[in-house]
Amino acid sequence: MLKFQEESLRQSVNGALALRHQINPFLDAIFEKGITNICFLGIGGTYASAMQTVSHMKEFTSMEVFAENAAEYITTGNRRIMDGTLLIYSSVTGSTPEIVKAVEKAHAAHATILAFLDNPNPHLRELCELCISYPQNEQLKLFMAADRILFLRHEFDCYDDCYENFDCYLADALISVEQSSDSFAQEFAKKHCNDTLHYFVGAGNQWGSTYSYGMCYWEEMHWMATKTVSSGEFFHGTLEIISRDTPVTLFISEDASRPLSLRVAAFLPKICANYTIIDAADYPLIGIKPQYRGFISHLVTHAVTNRIDVHLEAINCHPMEIRRYYRCLEY
Amino acid sequence: MLKFQEESLRQSVNGALALRHQINPFLDAIFEKGITNICFLGIGGTYASAMQTVSHMKEFTSMEVFAENAAEYITTGNRRIMDGTLLIYSSVTGSTPEIVKAVEKAHAAHATILAFLDNPNPHLRELCELCISYPQNEQLKLFMAADRILFLRHEFDCYDDCYENFDCYLADALISVEQSSDSFAQEFAKKHCNDTLHYFVGAGNQWGSTYSYGMCYWEEMHWMATKTVSSGEFFHGTLEIISRDTPVTLFISEDASRPLSLRVAAFLPKICANYTIIDAADYPLIGIKPQYRGFISHLVTHAVTNRIDVHLEAINCHPMEIRRYYRCLEY
Repeated sequence: MLKFQEESLRQSVNGALALRHQINPFLDAIFEKGITNICFLGIGGTYASAMQTVSHMKEFTSMEVFAENAAEYITTGNRRIMDGTLLIYSSVTGSTPEIVKAVEKAHAAHATILAFLDNPNPHLRELCELCISYPQNEQLKLFMAADRILFLRHEFDCYDDCYENFDCYLADALISVEQSSDSFAQEFAKKHCNDTLHYFVGAGNQWGSTYSYGMCYWEEMHWMATKTVSSGEFFHGTLEIISRDTPVTLFISEDASRPLSLRVAAFLPKICANYTIIDAADYPLIGIKPQYRGFISHLVTHAVTNRIDVHLEAINCHPMEIRRYYRCLEY
Repeated sequence: MLKFQEESLRQSVNGALALRHQINPFLDAIFEKGITNICFLGIGGTYASAMQTVSHMKEFTSMEVFAENAAEYITTGNRRIMDGTLLIYSSVTGSTPEIVKAVEKAHAAHATILAFLDNPNPHLRELCELCISYPQNEQLKLFMAADRILFLRHEFDCYDDCYENFDCYLADALISVEQSSDSFAQEFAKKHCNDTLHYFVGAGNQWGSTYSYGMCYWEEMHWMATKTVSSGEFFHGTLEIISRDTPVTLFISEDASRPLSLRVAAFLPKICANYTIIDAADYPLIGIKPQYRGFISHLVTHAVTNRIDVHLEAINCHPMEIRRYYRCLEY
């Protein structure tokens, strides 16, 4: 399989899961002291991850939890980020200017900060209460923090059982998804490599990844135009410009938002003959207990889009790492 | 001027401003009793209005304020909507199924509800503490409620002076914007009537209207493809697919988010030769005090897009009221 390293993927996921030994003692202590609210901070792809973690938590918690965009925070501010706020963010480089300034601002506002920094960055390390440096698996890292808080609040009593289940089966389940979706992904890439505008639709813990897949993968890495819309909003505008040949891809999760996307799935065939459904429920995820499947839907569909990306990159002769403007020009 | 009724527009705005006599006594009493948080509920265009009202409030308040999407609320729920929540929404028809169900759900969760219903609807009337029926001016109605709460919290002490100023000058200022932007709008419509994909960018109290202008006007009413992106996020993906001929329109407001959009304005000329800037600051708004201009930026740019719509409709021979699917098919 093109660009697929099974063993390194397995180690990567399992290593991420093991971070609970660092995350949990920290969150347990913070929770003991008391938290007023929780903010997931991000920008671009990390903002998308923040949005989907919030969507996941909202399904279960009565606590105030929100996503904040770093650029907006440093410009307009957000007075809900304060003493008593637990602020959680993830950053690969630790050098995104908006993130650095936002973290400085949240620190000055006395928020308690948990940072996931792929590359440890001395300045950002100083500005947080706990910094965890481990590559990739951003969504899993954020969800692990979210789930621990839900557990502490008695809003997710099966936490131990769930993560024991993930420890045993998650890595292989995701590897399996990549393997079994590869031929579909190649066909998809062949069919859509020349699309002039592709619509991506998703909801719930799938909305962040839908938004990010359009903007951070197709636009930024493939240089292909997309429009993303959430499944609920699809029926309030965007549906009107879908017709027979419009390329539409719908992501369906197994979380509480599933009915929103099923509604789109039921409607699309009436007006469109060029749609694709990527449904997390279609993958066996061997060993994963049914009740926890919804918690990892975004990882399942991400495993599928990973395979699409690899093939699209090859077919379009467009290496995903090149940028023409981002971090190349001043802005 | 095509489809322009000056006197009816003046009366419409002034009539909306006069609703303060109904809004304020209600909010003053609710506030006296105590509010835990505020939720602006909506879907599609009304969700966009909710988002921009929240963006406006966040600039000033330390209170918990959030926008909730009706489809998501009735599916995933939101336990922050509870006894102590002031829930505010606006609906033209009062018949949007997601809104009806969401209001029923919020009512059952003991939220206090303020409804702006253009067409009074007996069922929804029963489910709210105050129902105000007055046509159009949705954004102004929501902002008036928001501003009253800011005033009651001592986060907007100039409230009286501000609305006195709006009473005297707002209607004529907006009329003036429509008149003075009409020839620009006609040129814009001529230039862009065949666009295959138009990018709209905006931030702050302009983001909701940017999102809505793309989705509810161009997609739903003009059947033209758009992608909308917020000014801060523009630099984290979307910028990569903008090139010389890509049609981009940037809305700039005069609220605290202005620097985010100015950054896009400074960057666009480097990579694009087909961009347009619609800046609220370019309109004189005679009589409006400088410190209050930022509160109405979304109304100013909306006045400009009103004129674009009228011309686009005429040039494309596509009446804005026709829908092919929305409320025509079952879904």
